Amino acid sequence: MELTDARKELLALQEKLSAYYHALSLLSYDGETSAPRGTAANQAHATGILSEEVYRLSTGEGTVSLLEFLDSRKDGLTEKEQRMVYLLLKDIRFMQKIPLEEYTEYQKLMVTSQDVWVKAKETSDFALFEPYLTKVVSMTRRFAGYAAPDKDPYDYWLNEYEEGLSRAVCDAFFDRLRARLVPLIRYAQSRPQVDDACLHGVFPEDKQKELALYLMNLMGLDPDHVGLSTTEHPFTTSLGSHLDERITTHYHEDDWSSSMFSVIHEGGHALYDTGSAEDLVYTVLDGGVSMGIHESQSRFCENILARSKAFIRFLFPKLCELFPGQLDRFTWEDVYRAVNRVQPSLIRTEADEVTYCLHVMIRYELEKQLMAGTLAVHDLPQAWNRLYQEYLGVTVPDDRRGVLQDSHWSFGAIGYFPSYALGSAYGAQFLRQMKKTVDVDGALAQGDFAPMNGWNRERIWQYGSSKSPRDILAIALDGEPFDPDVYLDYLEEKVRDVYGA
Amino acid sequence: MELTDARKELLALQEKLSAYYHALSLLSYDGETSAPRGTAANQAHATGILSEEVYRLSTGEGTVSLLEFLDSRKDGLTEKEQRMVYLLLKDIRFMQKIPLEEYTEYQKLMVTSQDVWVKAKETSDFALFEPYLTKVVSMTRRFAGYAAPDKDPYDYWLNEYEEGLSRAVCDAFFDRLRARLVPLIRYAQSRPQVDDACLHGVFPEDKQKELALYLMNLMGLDPDHVGLSTTEHPFTTSLGSHLDERITTHYHEDDWSSSMFSVIHEGGHALYDTGSAEDLVYTVLDGGVSMGIHESQSRFCENILARSKAFIRFLFPKLCELFPGQLDRFTWEDVYRAVNRVQPSLIRTEADEVTYCLHVMIRYELEKQLMAGTLAVHDLPQAWNRLYQEYLGVTVPDDRRGVLQDSHWSFGAIGYFPSYALGSAYGAQFLRQMKKTVDVDGALAQGDFAPMNGWNRERIWQYGSSKSPRDILAIALDGEPFDPDVYLDYLEEKVRDVYGA
Repeated sequence: MELTDARKELLALQEKLSAYYHALSLLSYDGETSAPRGTAANQAHATGILSEEVYRLSTGEGTVSLLEFLDSRKDGLTEKEQRMVYLLLKDIRFMQKIPLEEYTEYQKLMVTSQDVWVKAKETSDFALFEPYLTKVVSMTRRFAGYAAPDKDPYDYWLNEYEEGLSRAVCDAFFDRLRARLVPLIRYAQSRPQVDDACLHGVFPEDKQKELALYLMNLMGLDPDHVGLSTTEHPFTTSLGSHLDERITTHYHEDDWSSSMFSVIHEGGHALYDTGSAEDLVYTVLDGGVSMGIHESQSRFCENILARSKAFIRFLFPKLCELFPGQLDRFTWEDVYRAVNRVQPSLIRTEADEVTYCLHVMIRYELEKQLMAGTLAVHDLPQAWNRLYQEYLGVTVPDDRRGVLQDSHWSFGAIGYFPSYALGSAYGAQFLRQMKKTVDVDGALAQGDFAPMNGWNRERIWQYGSSKSPRDILAIALDGEPFDPDVYLDYLEEKVRDVYGA
Repeated sequence: MELTDARKELLALQEKLSAYYHALSLLSYDGETSAPRGTAANQAHATGILSEEVYRLSTGEGTVSLLEFLDSRKDGLTEKEQRMVYLLLKDIRFMQKIPLEEYTEYQKLMVTSQDVWVKAKETSDFALFEPYLTKVVSMTRRFAGYAAPDKDPYDYWLNEYEEGLSRAVCDAFFDRLRARLVPLIRYAQSRPQVDDACLHGVFPEDKQKELALYLMNLMGLDPDHVGLSTTEHPFTTSLGSHLDERITTHYHEDDWSSSMFSVIHEGGHALYDTGSAEDLVYTVLDGGVSMGIHESQSRFCENILARSKAFIRFLFPKLCELFPGQLDRFTWEDVYRAVNRVQPSLIRTEADEVTYCLHVMIRYELEKQLMAGTLAVHDLPQAWNRLYQEYLGVTVPDDRRGVLQDSHWSFGAIGYFPSYALGSAYGAQFLRQMKKTVDVDGALAQGDFAPMNGWNRERIWQYGSSKSPRDILAIALDGEPFDPDVYLDYLEEKVRDVYGA
């Protein structure tokens, strides 16, 4: 094989894979947005067959020998090509260890499991979901065993969501958070309480949607390449490349802020994905590199930018215009305090910044036990409810607002949750770094995301997956090591500002 | 090869193809319903690659030798298997004659051409669409040349949309229609004119959508398997199998009847597709057999059932309830007359039953010339406008309401339009036959589609594509030959009823 030809074939292979993944992602996206309710089996049918095609293409002799050849001739490759070969081989080595039948069975399970989860959540019926989740957990464990027989299965998956992550790393990280978050929450609760009446009332969905589109525009999302739709659980997905990004939200008529922050959160993911450099398109380097870095961008937008004083002050007149008469008796300071109210609660995605990580820790504890086999899926709701009582002091009234609230487990994402906490902490450190050169508050006071987007684009987005999370962190932080205390300092300052010192 | 194995492989091949076509149809459906506006190139990229995969799978040695083996052992196959082999080989013989590059170029062209058509229609800018349509016409002609070098290219395509159709057959059919339609239109115009004020006003989209869903339910469409969304031009598509059908409509705020009849039209297509027998699923026999039979079902629902006296009388109270105060000064007879008003007009999909076929004939004449090369795409708008003046006596004010109104040519459907007229004529003959055993008016008076659905299911739907259009007609009509005069009698009776004898 000639190296020149092999390099061309490397690109052709990735284009082909991108088309298959486009189709598979679209099947899933359609299933969650537009598909009639009885079509999950039909969707699973196509998903199973196309996944089998991906498996055969990936593990086929032609592909493997191409990549091994390129790997053996690394020196003749650019840095990006080396990374493509590394990432592709990593995926293929994984697939090779999973029997084809199990691989496609798993892909089909993801479709039916998500479908059943939606129905189970609607009716708060964990029993309906239980057999599917049991299967998901068991296959997830089995796959980890195939992929890394000598490794603890949960460690395997943690590392898949964020390179370098393990139970040991998570335990240390969460211990450190816990040590300062618990007293911080206690402090906030000891102060005069914040009234969040300004968030509540009846806010028509079409007005909330108008706000969502307004915010997406403000964030600098290109409407020609980023779409918005409605789902049970908000998410972001890329279809084929960073040229087609879809975000979703869920409107709660009684609280305008819920869809607002979910749109900004998903919008942050979309900014990151669509910010990949043009020349990464249709390669495995296109789009965000890890869930940790991804969540750093989404939670940065959602909290650090959008829950800031400067931004809420800027946004308040727009809110008054969209919901006429409903915010008259409030000030922008009321809104600022309300959206930063520290209040142990039931729903992770709607939690305040300070209690948020406790929601993550609960899921982490449960995943650890599920993957260790010390907790049966059947006992999960009780364990969930007990931990919510223990960590947050709240009583879970039903599984809909408890163990069924998040979609992640329904699509096999076990090991994903810690990325939310990690990303939140990365984000605070990015902010400190960013402020050295960017007038963040000044920009937010104008509703102008461009200066922060510019910083993120230059240091993070443009690279897509062409650098490892570790390298991205090093670039973004100018080599400064990751330090969770920056995040905790940030949270303490926020609490002091909202609750008084 | 063992016959038993080959028969299993025959099914596996079709399952695989159904998954690819599912993905390709979904890419197209998403492009027209949800995709952000700037994503057509991204969609075309995936479409091109997946089409290439379909081409390779279809024309690959394994597939061809399998089908040739089965074809040589016909006697050992069931009638359905024989038909599968026939239809698959027909497709493959076609593909084999088209060079791969041109095949995928064409699939990509369909995506961009449809995308540009939407934009051109919005801005009434034919010049924008012209280069794409020029390419579509030229490739359509070239493909016919590849497929059947000795055949006239338009004859080739007419026969693709309805087996047995040719210019000679169409000419004779349209001459026969023209001979009685032109005097019939003249007669209606000579009578006191029908006032259609009851159709016009301001009718909110959400209420029209409520009506659409009500009608879909009335028609017996299963909401678990048939979805509704909004597009520039209404259409129906199956995703992967008859288990997932999507119909679309377009709401015009100033006329409630436009979306109503388009939903019933597309609903008719969906009834036909979803009515395939269960055992046809994931085979090439699943779903409707030809555009002629398809349009017979859609136009049957839209006109023969939904524009009937009995149905409009039944529906009127529901309309009054949905549009309160807006229909007070009218009676159900006013609505019946208004939706059957004979009035030469600009838009095919909104034309009355009597002038409708003239819209089709105009397109037929233009396609004939385009395919013969005697009309250049550049001159199409002028030719269109001239024929509208000549056939219908109306002046086309702009291309949006002229040559750009229909989407068909943008996705290469040249030779499709005659199916609308043919299907309408089939439908009238089905009605005559149906009335021998079904109390159609009695059922419509109750808004009950079930008896007619039962008849259509038994004689038409259940067969999917497992029988030829000719065989379906023979079954439906108990062997009676197709006779367009039944359709013309039906139309004359309608005109007499609305305009007086």
